[in-house]
Amino acid sequence: METLRVALLGAGNVGAQVARILLEDADALAARVGARLELTGIAVRDVDAPRTVDLPRELYATDADAVLAGADIVVELIGGIEPARTLILRALAAGATVVTGNKALLAEHGPELYAAAEDAGVQLAYEAAVAGAIPIIRPVRDNLAGDNITRVLGIVNGTTNYILDAMDATGASFADALADAQRLGYAEADPTADVEGLDAAAKATILASLAFHTSFDRAHVWSEGITAITAEDVAAAREAGYVIKLLAICEAVPADPQAPDGDRGVAVRVHPTLLPRDHALASVRGAYNAVYVEAEYAGSLMFYGAGAGGVPTASAVLGDIVSAARRRVLGGPGVTESVAASVTPVGLEAVVTSYAIGLRVADAPGVLAAIAAVFGDHGVSIETMRQTTHADEGGDEAGDAELRIVTHRALDAALRRTVDAVGRLDAVHEVTSILRVEGA
Amino acid sequence: METLRVALLGAGNVGAQVARILLEDADALAARVGARLELTGIAVRDVDAPRTVDLPRELYATDADAVLAGADIVVELIGGIEPARTLILRALAAGATVVTGNKALLAEHGPELYAAAEDAGVQLAYEAAVAGAIPIIRPVRDNLAGDNITRVLGIVNGTTNYILDAMDATGASFADALADAQRLGYAEADPTADVEGLDAAAKATILASLAFHTSFDRAHVWSEGITAITAEDVAAAREAGYVIKLLAICEAVPADPQAPDGDRGVAVRVHPTLLPRDHALASVRGAYNAVYVEAEYAGSLMFYGAGAGGVPTASAVLGDIVSAARRRVLGGPGVTESVAASVTPVGLEAVVTSYAIGLRVADAPGVLAAIAAVFGDHGVSIETMRQTTHADEGGDEAGDAELRIVTHRALDAALRRTVDAVGRLDAVHEVTSILRVEGA
Repeated sequence: METLRVALLGAGNVGAQVARILLEDADALAARVGARLELTGIAVRDVDAPRTVDLPRELYATDADAVLAGADIVVELIGGIEPARTLILRALAAGATVVTGNKALLAEHGPELYAAAEDAGVQLAYEAAVAGAIPIIRPVRDNLAGDNITRVLGIVNGTTNYILDAMDATGASFADALADAQRLGYAEADPTADVEGLDAAAKATILASLAFHTSFDRAHVWSEGITAITAEDVAAAREAGYVIKLLAICEAVPADPQAPDGDRGVAVRVHPTLLPRDHALASVRGAYNAVYVEAEYAGSLMFYGAGAGGVPTASAVLGDIVSAARRRVLGGPGVTESVAASVTPVGLEAVVTSYAIGLRVADAPGVLAAIAAVFGDHGVSIETMRQTTHADEGGDEAGDAELRIVTHRALDAALRRTVDAVGRLDAVHEVTSILRVEGA
Repeated sequence: METLRVALLGAGNVGAQVARILLEDADALAARVGARLELTGIAVRDVDAPRTVDLPRELYATDADAVLAGADIVVELIGGIEPARTLILRALAAGATVVTGNKALLAEHGPELYAAAEDAGVQLAYEAAVAGAIPIIRPVRDNLAGDNITRVLGIVNGTTNYILDAMDATGASFADALADAQRLGYAEADPTADVEGLDAAAKATILASLAFHTSFDRAHVWSEGITAITAEDVAAAREAGYVIKLLAICEAVPADPQAPDGDRGVAVRVHPTLLPRDHALASVRGAYNAVYVEAEYAGSLMFYGAGAGGVPTASAVLGDIVSAARRRVLGGPGVTESVAASVTPVGLEAVVTSYAIGLRVADAPGVLAAIAAVFGDHGVSIETMRQTTHADEGGDEAGDAELRIVTHRALDAALRRTVDAVGRLDAVHEVTSILRVEGA
């Protein structure tokens, strides 16, 4: 039986599990591939660093180039931009198939890497880069290759879903829910990439490129995290029949909002979103992920599962390794990206959405009428308006009222202008929150 | 730009939509493939039969062999065993890639067809054969290729799910719900293949073969339909916190139940199943399908979408056509099945499950104790027992009582023997229903 040489870059949470399974399941994997997968080396920074999995010490090496040399399949699980990018380009140029889970790198340098794979006639596989163990790259690239995807809505970051779910379930503040998530290992000590929406934005970039057969760039993606979400926002959403989720949304929209029947564009955005509680994505709890895809012919599809974690993500990496190995045994180049359409990236302003707006206003006659008039002047209509009068907090002014408004759907730019104008009214003391509503 | 010749066999519900989309979306598909997909002909029995879609008349021909000749990709959507089997074998032998949605054929003759594809070095693709538009074949075959699937639970028949959902929502009888489904087009005039579980059993055969890397045969699959489900069963299930679904279940079990740590076998079965109402599959409504996959590393995954219908199923067929076309443009053989493991097919008797049993018993002292004693004698323990005393129906005997028992988990064979023994008690007048419980 033929042997294929597998080189691993990185022995972190995912890498160590991939190595373990390659060794433990070697016979079963060989039977499925038709060739043995020999793990030839693991490139690490420090051979003696403590590891979560006990692997033969002789596999470790600090010289990544030496580990790469002669490999048929290179598995990059270092993360970050460099040296991952350089090592992947080197491996592709040497004719190796590359498997990676590096979403940040693909979001920043995807087109360069896809082109390098195509030039070399080898495959670059990255199922693990989006939504962990959930099959989503291959279904979007292959299963839906003959369909026209119109929208992708994804819960693609487990940390933020865990935090928002905890806030919804317990009424906790963002800070408390984050601390809890950190204590339980669902959030990192520096949670920035997750809670600011950067991780989700990288995944949205990758999904949009695949779903719309075009080259999306991270710079095209509008992103907003969940750090400003308050317990009051969560409670108000719940009361109105919604749950707040951090969604990655990739959506076909008119390239020019003034010409709705003209060329198509695609808007990609990540932001906290009010979802009706009966939406399929609303019931995704804890650190789970799910991706909801709407396509012209298939209708609505949903993919659900573990979005992170060393072992589940290793499952996605191993699927890519086995598929790539089968392809090498069979011969012939791997399928590369189909960047066939040149769809215009469209900014958030051209998206049609609705806003859930929180306002602190003077509790005085005529205020609601003045606010409603501003909406009317901007051509934005109000779906619901709820007012709660605050108890006087002991100051010398009368207690403010809290107003929660949900608008009908309109262009984001028009909604934004409306809120700006409302915020300039004397009677409006603060715009406490702006959240978008989808899925209704 | 290169042209690939696509021949279509059949212009029914799905075939006509595939043809329409190939023609209407020709430019977009060409851009994604890197070659034009030319629909060269559609083999039909009657050129002049009425069709749901208006297609150029010159595409139709009754000579299937002439339509096949010279095709790069042959799309078989005739259904049934013959002539589909012969035509597919002929197309594969001629070097064409074959795309089919024919679950009955794959379940009966899968190994022969896979072998023919492998001999010819071409691909046989059949994403549309299981769960319509839902990507499930490729995720199981490729994404989970490096994982070890332990169980697949699927709602893979939309007709029966529609009927059971209607019975659950409205309290309707099976006959009324079926008539309603027929009126709305969710059930065929002859509903046998759906309501007797035969369609689901064919899909279970295909899923089991892929998930466990082995050659399953339709004869290995135990199947039971939903025709015996009564409104009382549905009501009793609801009262106990369950919903009744027709599930296809493929499960790794010990090959020998007496040697739980010995060789692995796989049991494949289709039967009405009590599912806890908070299980992910319990909320699959109407004619939708969903497949729940449990794997050693990935954990639980769920795939949800439209399981039938001409247009959604056409989406799956087109995904296969585009993927196959890309492969032909790139060169190299298509990936074939990996029949790498020789797992023992295990019968239903060796499955560990629990029973929900309905009994009509004499409403007399000592009856419950006698029944409980039979369970104890067989080593089967009872989880819950609910008794309802029937109103006397005017006969000359005292009113019977209705008993609903849910057991703890045990081997199906042991449960079956227990029910047989209970049925022989004088005080037990009828075993009104036996349903299995999963997912608890």
